[in-house]
Amino acid sequence: MRDFSQIKVLAFDIFGTVVDWHSSIIQEIEIMNLAIDANQFALDWRTGYRPAMDKVLASELPWTSIDDLHRMILDGLLIQYNINTLNEEQITHLNHIWHRLSPWNDSIEALKQLKEKYIICTLSNGNIRLLVDMAKHAKLPWDYIFSAENFRAYKPSPKTYLGVAELLNVQPDQVMMVAAHYDDLVAARACGLLTAYIERPLEFGSSRINGVSPCVDNDLHATDLLDLVRLLDNSF
Amino acid sequence: MRDFSQIKVLAFDIFGTVVDWHSSIIQEIEIMNLAIDANQFALDWRTGYRPAMDKVLASELPWTSIDDLHRMILDGLLIQYNINTLNEEQITHLNHIWHRLSPWNDSIEALKQLKEKYIICTLSNGNIRLLVDMAKHAKLPWDYIFSAENFRAYKPSPKTYLGVAELLNVQPDQVMMVAAHYDDLVAARACGLLTAYIERPLEFGSSRINGVSPCVDNDLHATDLLDLVRLLDNSF
Repeated sequence: MRDFSQIKVLAFDIFGTVVDWHSSIIQEIEIMNLAIDANQFALDWRTGYRPAMDKVLASELPWTSIDDLHRMILDGLLIQYNINTLNEEQITHLNHIWHRLSPWNDSIEALKQLKEKYIICTLSNGNIRLLVDMAKHAKLPWDYIFSAENFRAYKPSPKTYLGVAELLNVQPDQVMMVAAHYDDLVAARACGLLTAYIERPLEFGSSRINGVSPCVDNDLHATDLLDLVRLLDNSF
Repeated sequence: MRDFSQIKVLAFDIFGTVVDWHSSIIQEIEIMNLAIDANQFALDWRTGYRPAMDKVLASELPWTSIDDLHRMILDGLLIQYNINTLNEEQITHLNHIWHRLSPWNDSIEALKQLKEKYIICTLSNGNIRLLVDMAKHAKLPWDYIFSAENFRAYKPSPKTYLGVAELLNVQPDQVMMVAAHYDDLVAARACGLLTAYIERPLEFGSSRINGVSPCVDNDLHATDLLDLVRLLDNSF
């Protein structure tokens, strides 16, 4: 059994790892009665996310917050889906759906338990206000909220992972990155962080099941965040 | 009655306003049996704080965290008070006393109530790790922790007050700065923030009672944080 007693900080990816963006968006879209395929709309919105951030990382766009990137993608989708019944206030409200995402069933209880032993923080590409609103809405008990906005760089930039360690005054190997996405964990590991993979087979809904097979490079592989609590408890 | 309905964010000064550094330090010093005047030691440590930050603001020192500034001051005090019985580990532990300060009696209950209506955050010169540890220790229910470290500038630099508004995506006049110190509020007001003064007559202990007379420039003058809750409730 490995010894993880040096870990002081658990840094969590948010979209997909801690909150279920896919069904949260579908729920709100269905209530709006827009007569569109809500599942596909949610997937399309999310699909625009990585290319938009990559434009910022490649300096094709100046620093742009996720709220603004989400809005750019949304404006395109409103045309694509022929949605022309919404006024500006309603579009802004819809765009802020990402501030109102619901946690997976295991998230809150697991975070409360992990908070007893560790500093628990976000490390998300979401902007600070988005993450603050989400924490208030979903009652996520963070000790600290790190956003790409703090570093003006999106994951997987090393500035983000190393920034967490620097600002919390710990060594990189005293931080464990927790995420449902391999690319996030690969980048964290390259900076010297430990990594825990969380299975979220339904991140993209049941129409597009997520592969969740183990990768030996990760220090831990957990079926959900409560399983992560057990694995960390058993590691001493 | 003034209308404060535009306020979205309450930003709190910490040392003296939310936590009682003076008696917290005295308590720990007395337990250590160092045979020194604990009251004077606490006052001397705090007295070194502003000049140390001013050296950073004036670029006489490079960016230096409060942990490191506290340590520089402490190293001088250990000589001045002829304390030579502490090893490095004990000195580090003593220096981190500022991470373990206790809240004033009214702070926790007031913050919980204010959190229902507002985004409540710190805006402190303390470094991030200090503020995170303090929040865990004292169970301070912050929505966000802003530190001078986020802006690499100490209060009263405008970067700090305007940074809160910018990163929370609100206008400066949607933020109310809450502090027991007039200079902090003067600087916040110059940036367009609203200001609430909190009376803390015992911040420096009973040997050096703090003047707490009202200043008409402040939007609110409260006897403590629970009084601030009442004043804000009555303002609508």
